[in-house]
Amino acid sequence: MAKESGKKWVLMVTAQTPTNIAVIKYWGKRDEKLILPINDSISVTLDPSHLCTTTSVAVSPDFTHDRMWLNGKEISLSGGRYQNCLRELRARASEVEDEEKGIKITKKDWEKLHVHVASYNNFPTAAGLASSAAGFACLVFSLAKLMNVKEDQSKLSAIARQGSGSACRSLYGGFVKWIMGKEKDGSDSVAVQLADENHWDDLVIIIAVVSSRQKETSSTSGMLETVETSMLIQHRAKEVVPKRIIQMEEAIKNRDFPSFARLSCADSNQFHAVCLDTSPPIFYMNDTSHRIISCVEKWNHFEGTPQVAYTFDAGPNAVLISHNRETAALLLQRLLFHFPPNSNTDLNSYVIGDKTILQDAGIQNMKDVEALAPPPEIKDNIPTQKYKGDVSYFICTKPGRGPVLLTNESQALLDPKTGLPK
Amino acid sequence: MAKESGKKWVLMVTAQTPTNIAVIKYWGKRDEKLILPINDSISVTLDPSHLCTTTSVAVSPDFTHDRMWLNGKEISLSGGRYQNCLRELRARASEVEDEEKGIKITKKDWEKLHVHVASYNNFPTAAGLASSAAGFACLVFSLAKLMNVKEDQSKLSAIARQGSGSACRSLYGGFVKWIMGKEKDGSDSVAVQLADENHWDDLVIIIAVVSSRQKETSSTSGMLETVETSMLIQHRAKEVVPKRIIQMEEAIKNRDFPSFARLSCADSNQFHAVCLDTSPPIFYMNDTSHRIISCVEKWNHFEGTPQVAYTFDAGPNAVLISHNRETAALLLQRLLFHFPPNSNTDLNSYVIGDKTILQDAGIQNMKDVEALAPPPEIKDNIPTQKYKGDVSYFICTKPGRGPVLLTNESQALLDPKTGLPK
Repeated sequence: MAKESGKKWVLMVTAQTPTNIAVIKYWGKRDEKLILPINDSISVTLDPSHLCTTTSVAVSPDFTHDRMWLNGKEISLSGGRYQNCLRELRARASEVEDEEKGIKITKKDWEKLHVHVASYNNFPTAAGLASSAAGFACLVFSLAKLMNVKEDQSKLSAIARQGSGSACRSLYGGFVKWIMGKEKDGSDSVAVQLADENHWDDLVIIIAVVSSRQKETSSTSGMLETVETSMLIQHRAKEVVPKRIIQMEEAIKNRDFPSFARLSCADSNQFHAVCLDTSPPIFYMNDTSHRIISCVEKWNHFEGTPQVAYTFDAGPNAVLISHNRETAALLLQRLLFHFPPNSNTDLNSYVIGDKTILQDAGIQNMKDVEALAPPPEIKDNIPTQKYKGDVSYFICTKPGRGPVLLTNESQALLDPKTGLPK
Repeated sequence: MAKESGKKWVLMVTAQTPTNIAVIKYWGKRDEKLILPINDSISVTLDPSHLCTTTSVAVSPDFTHDRMWLNGKEISLSGGRYQNCLRELRARASEVEDEEKGIKITKKDWEKLHVHVASYNNFPTAAGLASSAAGFACLVFSLAKLMNVKEDQSKLSAIARQGSGSACRSLYGGFVKWIMGKEKDGSDSVAVQLADENHWDDLVIIIAVVSSRQKETSSTSGMLETVETSMLIQHRAKEVVPKRIIQMEEAIKNRDFPSFARLSCADSNQFHAVCLDTSPPIFYMNDTSHRIISCVEKWNHFEGTPQVAYTFDAGPNAVLISHNRETAALLLQRLLFHFPPNSNTDLNSYVIGDKTILQDAGIQNMKDVEALAPPPEIKDNIPTQKYKGDVSYFICTKPGRGPVLLTNESQALLDPKTGLPK
């Protein structure tokens, strides 16, 4: 296993993987175990500076079993989805040699060696921000590096898919399509990059993290129930989505924002419509989500052409994609006007991520927020109700890059000597 | 016109017409002017003791133009829908003779004579409780009586339909189907009675009038936008509804409550799903509506068989149909537990209509409401949040009869001498 079995060693890799937001939604599986979807989907990868998972994976002959720590807390790896990813990767592992450290792992060794995984999200977990997508993508990407898996990114995406469907799309930056595939074994259900993050770098994204008191239905059980009970989901998957995929690819290729926005909004709404058509119905959006949509729709209508696209995943949070920085600043003004922070909230923790958007909006402190005038599109509709505290915070970000290796050891989450969390 | 033209006279008719709630929904027109729907619908007529319109119509040679008062306030009759109903009825008017009063109106006279209409809803108008359905049904029914229109109820329903689509279903008591029809002129788009109100008289209906701060999209513009923009509505109209109509007719015929409930809930949700699939999306339900649905779904799931059906029209109010009085009392307990009145609200004005349900539920005062124990189906889900003030009030009612003439002059809304509101 190791050249010198007397010498203790730990081999470690650390990677960072972005999260992504679907603009043509994935909802409904044709195979629950392999996680094969009933339609293609398209996503935008979000800038990992603001939303990403960092994962360190380590291997050592001293490890007695596979272990994982998520955000500092040990969790079980016994779940089928973790096991599927681990099995697929182990089967593809290659020889690894580190002469300096005196380590040599053969292809066969990987079957017996155990791994340690430590994963950390730089954004709130369980806030409905697709932490599992970034998480499984990072797990697969980092383990593939550690195990010297010689598969291209697309093949890796098929492995990540078995951890969490949308994870496959997090293996690329920019604009990504998850092809549903036709094969029974799922081998052709992979993600491909449509365009990288530099292709359309005007876009600015503002995420409204919405306070939710309602318990959510998990995506897994939700989409299963939709496929079983909705009378509309098959029509969506077979008739509506294929056309939208073509149109969305075209819109991205041409940086055609009006089409991009119209398709994103319509597809988000249709995904929530089939959730509502499920028995019992699934509600992911709440009154605050509805109000954010109304605010955007009113503005878009007023301008005569879409300024902002919205899309909501399986939760109440709004992901708002604006045309450019200027529009993003106007959007942020509107959002802060309608949804000001609670009196005891610091503006600095209320708008996070790329804070330069806040500067562009001319907002430096709470007084500036209070002084915001109603936007022109609502001036006639009195009274203007404000919804203080209905949004937890905003994240300003943009489309971003795919997974990267972090070579600076200080960024590792495991101790290079013990292989335990730092 | 009148036998003795020197003698002033007013001829008057007063009628009472119920409202109705669709359990298979009407949404979307194939003809905007004639109000022809894209699918059949089925409704339950509500007891006019609790929700109805009373309308007095009068004719006199002294009236200089058609006038109407709604809830005591004069409104314009110039709208196309009023004009359509009036024109259709005038064209079918017959000779009327009242020897005692010395009145004779020939068929031809009706073209020149003007009418006065006074209409009153015994429930809040514009609270999303289908006041236009009861209103137009009552206008057409009472004018038909006044004008001695010799058409059967079904033909009258085709006239009422041109005032407000769902009005056609208010011309019958009990369970009513509005057949969409095929003819271009709408002549076969009529309502028919499936069963009268005595056929299934166990049912008890509780309406939760939900406080709404959001401005609603009118049904007229809403369904137009859905037909124009939803990618799901045609599939619903052509593939889903026809099957549900057959199943719902069967469920009503057999008094099969589980099927009735499942179909009602699914169809209500699907109607709101196509609203959400509209561009821009239409939200009629709010968080309170969602919570009422969750409360019912949890209970139904816990019992293993539906206890209560819910259905929501183009607004946030819940119409809850329970199996029998016993279940209705249990439902009211649950509703009052989750949605207690504001501290300053009188229980007597918080639960209106058939108050015996309140007695059956063992609730006499606010202390009884406060003492309500959490229902067994939520005992494990802590904490149980209460939503005080989120419901304005509850109306307890049941399926009811169709339109009737009110012969007691004290119930008339117009002065029999002047033809003006009393």
